Amino acid sequence: MTQQATSSVDLARLETEYRYRPERLAITKISPSVSDGAYPTKRVVNDIVEFAVIVVCDGAVEIGVQLRLSDPSGNEQTVPMNRQAGYRFSAEVALTELGSYTWVVDAWIDRAATLRSKIGRKRAVGQPTENEEEELRRLGDHPCSDRITSRIEHVVVDRLLASFSGWYEFFPRSTGPSPEQPGTLRTCIDRLDYAASMGFDIVYLPPIHPIGRSHRKGINNAVEANPGDVGSPWAIGSSDGGHTSIHPDLGTFEDFDLLVASARDRGLEIALDIAFQCSPDHPWVSEHPEWFSIRPDGSIGYAENPPKQYQDILPFDFDCTEWRALWTALADVVRFWHRRGVRVFRIDNPHTKPFPFWEWLIADLKADDPGIVFLAEAFAHPDVMLQLSRVGFSVAYTHFPWQHSPYDLEHYSELLAGGDRSEFFRASSWVNTPDILTEELQQGLRQTFEARLVLAATMSASYGVYGPVFELQVADAIQGSEEYLNGEKYEVRAWDLDDERSLRHLMQRVNEIRREHLALQHDRSLVFHHCDNSRIVAFSKTAPRRVGAIGDPSPILVVVNTDHHNTQDGYVRLDLRAFGAELLDESAPGGVAYEVHDLLTGQRFTWHGADNYVRLDPWLQSAHVFALRRLHTSDQQMELA
Amino acid sequence: MTQQATSSVDLARLETEYRYRPERLAITKISPSVSDGAYPTKRVVNDIVEFAVIVVCDGAVEIGVQLRLSDPSGNEQTVPMNRQAGYRFSAEVALTELGSYTWVVDAWIDRAATLRSKIGRKRAVGQPTENEEEELRRLGDHPCSDRITSRIEHVVVDRLLASFSGWYEFFPRSTGPSPEQPGTLRTCIDRLDYAASMGFDIVYLPPIHPIGRSHRKGINNAVEANPGDVGSPWAIGSSDGGHTSIHPDLGTFEDFDLLVASARDRGLEIALDIAFQCSPDHPWVSEHPEWFSIRPDGSIGYAENPPKQYQDILPFDFDCTEWRALWTALADVVRFWHRRGVRVFRIDNPHTKPFPFWEWLIADLKADDPGIVFLAEAFAHPDVMLQLSRVGFSVAYTHFPWQHSPYDLEHYSELLAGGDRSEFFRASSWVNTPDILTEELQQGLRQTFEARLVLAATMSASYGVYGPVFELQVADAIQGSEEYLNGEKYEVRAWDLDDERSLRHLMQRVNEIRREHLALQHDRSLVFHHCDNSRIVAFSKTAPRRVGAIGDPSPILVVVNTDHHNTQDGYVRLDLRAFGAELLDESAPGGVAYEVHDLLTGQRFTWHGADNYVRLDPWLQSAHVFALRRLHTSDQQMELA
Repeated sequence: MTQQATSSVDLARLETEYRYRPERLAITKISPSVSDGAYPTKRVVNDIVEFAVIVVCDGAVEIGVQLRLSDPSGNEQTVPMNRQAGYRFSAEVALTELGSYTWVVDAWIDRAATLRSKIGRKRAVGQPTENEEEELRRLGDHPCSDRITSRIEHVVVDRLLASFSGWYEFFPRSTGPSPEQPGTLRTCIDRLDYAASMGFDIVYLPPIHPIGRSHRKGINNAVEANPGDVGSPWAIGSSDGGHTSIHPDLGTFEDFDLLVASARDRGLEIALDIAFQCSPDHPWVSEHPEWFSIRPDGSIGYAENPPKQYQDILPFDFDCTEWRALWTALADVVRFWHRRGVRVFRIDNPHTKPFPFWEWLIADLKADDPGIVFLAEAFAHPDVMLQLSRVGFSVAYTHFPWQHSPYDLEHYSELLAGGDRSEFFRASSWVNTPDILTEELQQGLRQTFEARLVLAATMSASYGVYGPVFELQVADAIQGSEEYLNGEKYEVRAWDLDDERSLRHLMQRVNEIRREHLALQHDRSLVFHHCDNSRIVAFSKTAPRRVGAIGDPSPILVVVNTDHHNTQDGYVRLDLRAFGAELLDESAPGGVAYEVHDLLTGQRFTWHGADNYVRLDPWLQSAHVFALRRLHTSDQQMELA
Repeated sequence: MTQQATSSVDLARLETEYRYRPERLAITKISPSVSDGAYPTKRVVNDIVEFAVIVVCDGAVEIGVQLRLSDPSGNEQTVPMNRQAGYRFSAEVALTELGSYTWVVDAWIDRAATLRSKIGRKRAVGQPTENEEEELRRLGDHPCSDRITSRIEHVVVDRLLASFSGWYEFFPRSTGPSPEQPGTLRTCIDRLDYAASMGFDIVYLPPIHPIGRSHRKGINNAVEANPGDVGSPWAIGSSDGGHTSIHPDLGTFEDFDLLVASARDRGLEIALDIAFQCSPDHPWVSEHPEWFSIRPDGSIGYAENPPKQYQDILPFDFDCTEWRALWTALADVVRFWHRRGVRVFRIDNPHTKPFPFWEWLIADLKADDPGIVFLAEAFAHPDVMLQLSRVGFSVAYTHFPWQHSPYDLEHYSELLAGGDRSEFFRASSWVNTPDILTEELQQGLRQTFEARLVLAATMSASYGVYGPVFELQVADAIQGSEEYLNGEKYEVRAWDLDDERSLRHLMQRVNEIRREHLALQHDRSLVFHHCDNSRIVAFSKTAPRRVGAIGDPSPILVVVNTDHHNTQDGYVRLDLRAFGAELLDESAPGGVAYEVHDLLTGQRFTWHGADNYVRLDPWLQSAHVFALRRLHTSDQQMELA
């Protein structure tokens, strides 16, 4: 009854598609990875990275898996990947060098190990194993088969500063004793001690270049400037020079070099503002008209977003015929300041320039110095912000200023950090900027400033303050806008840093807490916790896995009342799994006992298990920053004694 | 004060990497997609598919996006993709042909549209537009720039049967009037009316091939068979033939052809079992010893998983030197039965054969007939099950039989369908198999059988029953195992289909409900809902987006008491968003009123909003299968009248 099957299988196709027998394994779920390997993952120096894959194979065979990791110097190390649950294999490696690591995973069938396992199981029940032993001998020098290698993945390792840093912005010309005696780079040096005393890491200066005169904006962004108006530092370029020049009123390159060195002496870094646009008076406008958009009427195109017109700003035409020369010149601007010792750059409006321009520029600069940090100032759609970070930006401003409620804070955080996004996107939360004095801050309540500072500095390892207006709680805005009234963007101001209302001591304490507590030095462990009062936000972090990190590894729990007028109270329900095994003990009735120590006030409370009561009167205290410590029996006895 | 920057940018590299100016757009988040395009997405005929991407670009430009879709015949259609929220673009297309569709996305900057928008906004405020109009004219025949195309993606379109089908398995030799008069293919034909009357779609037969005599297993899987023992149908091959032969006791090829035709006449399809393994008596063992593993002692290797030994089963050596001939012969087995009219195959233990073998075999067979359905019987680790579906299996058995609690049911469902997995993995929930009589069913409670049937048939569009033991509630197992006592795998049985205890009428009603209600004809809309009683599981589905689907489009809500002994009650909290806008009306105090109509009992209740009370006494009724219908004011007035 046998009937012969007639083959119609295309053997030639079989030959072509699988020249040799195709490998029996498949590698999936490669981690960490961004857009399936299209862009690098980001880490900072000394991070311990868990490299993981799923490797599946048919049948019951022993699978071998290894990581091959090339460091930025090109040295390759091979690390066995161990089998975890199911078919997951992983290895942990500390990335201790700055720059770009490359890694692949190899997987194979370990036929020798498979036979050895079989022999062991047969021997255990007294079954003969001669066949297996001979098969093992015959494998000889080829104990493995079906070796495959996964796609190439990259990890960019940045300085810690790219991920964990407090930024402090101020206008150099407002560092003088009075508006009549404008500040200079020399008075900026005096201001460094002030920033350092508050514990910041980076001093960021708005553009220091010559300012154009044509179409100069007046005080409070007036369309016409009055004589004597100093103009906006972002209208770059005049007969005094362009992006590689210093405004004559601010000083000389010698002053600048001294500023950079003085900052370094104080443990600070200077960040410069890179705003790739020109005033009509920029030397490049006459030297390189081909880099701009020439309109049909012969004029050079200025920035427009109809009906708005910005005659004082000429954008570059990144699509121009001479784009190569333009791009090169712009990269050379960054290189110029880098050679003068600047390793941190705040990039103005990167979302109005092509992604491939940034991808090329950042890669090119980081090839010179992998420690350069680029902060993207793109208040754009999250899809655009994410793409800028994929192509290379180290860290990015976010819409944090407008996230007020616990719901908003949690969901915006998820929007930016969910999925694979925490692998490449680093948020920098700014409490204010020269353009952003939120309506919430305009109410002028001290507790609002305090609460926003604590939120920014604890929710994000990278955060920023534009001062001294912030610590002095300046709250006056141009009517119906978020711009500062008599803002420093358009005029010279002077400030009394010793004003007794200043929040400088809170800022100092918050930065101190950040330095002392490892949990606040990254964002990967950020978890939001439920509170039955919808005005109270609660979130926690635990210490990063990082070699050589010196500091207190306690988990940190932050609880903030977002209602700045009324006392709010309620029960915070902690997801105890977020704190690891330490606070989970199912045998403890009512949950584990632990101490929550408020690092702002010094208060200490004993909490138990998941649900605990909080109460915050904003007129007294808007926020808790708790360090958590499990209480062991001996502690509790002492407590009772 | 200008200082000339010295260029050190590698212009050659710039030239090489970006021969022409690189495009300013980036395409991300391509959907639907499996493993970033490495494997095809799956759909069934007439599914309306939403193709979507995120396209970002710098600046404020109009972006054009289109889908280019090639149908299985090679005809390409171009469909504009419209901008949704943010930078998301999408297009919906009904896939009306069987086979493999190919699609890509093109995106570009629409410079003409950008200028027209600018002109419009300037005109609205009376600003001159001569420059823009001239720029528009100059664009001429090149209104667009920066065109990019995304990676190639595939969608495999299967028959509805691949996703939505009720399977009914029975042993051909047990269709006779008594064990002494074994069934044949002819008596199988008589059994078709029974399966059709219950509303099943597929009749699946265990292997119908000659059964080996060497090392034949006896009744209840005894190591030694007694004379007259019929052996397991999975011990394939004897002197009567192998995988392309029919067991002489079952009948002839003429009988088989009649069976296939008879099934077709009743709206049924025959599914055959493909078990790629041999008994020691299979003709191939002597004809093609090179396809098997020859041990050092000269014997042919049998299946082993030490200490277990299966001397009656010889596995193929898929790695053998003659693997091409072996693979071709195996594909030809499937092709042989396909040519006899079989288009549905249940593949036995595919996880013990190489993934690339299946990838090649399935593609090769579906090139002949894209309507072929392959069911994977891999009770393996989910990672392995998922990979089998990635490489081509249409649908797969799952661990459903062992998911008893609401928690297990929900989390196992998420494990298999979360992330991109619903794009390629289709679950088939089986209430039992010849190897799986779960401990839960062994208790022998009618309500357990009923509840499990309703769960399988409503949670999964594809589900299966091994009968008649299931409807007759056979519950006796071999002590300490999940194998049926005196199971049909090793002996001939006969059944009284008209037993009054039979669940055949419930099965008939459940299959009828599945046919009438579109929501139960796919799994994509499956949502679990919270119940404050942890023994009650609740889930819902809504109708698929599918052209030409005829049936009731009401949402279906299933509520099952998983405690088969005690009455359980509680509040189900529906996530009303799962039902679309219909049940969401924030203006309605207490929520929208809607009717829940139990399709099993005919009961009707009026529910309001999210929280509603349920109570199920398993001795009376274990499950509700509710159709939901919003009540409008007129209905409610009628109700009150």
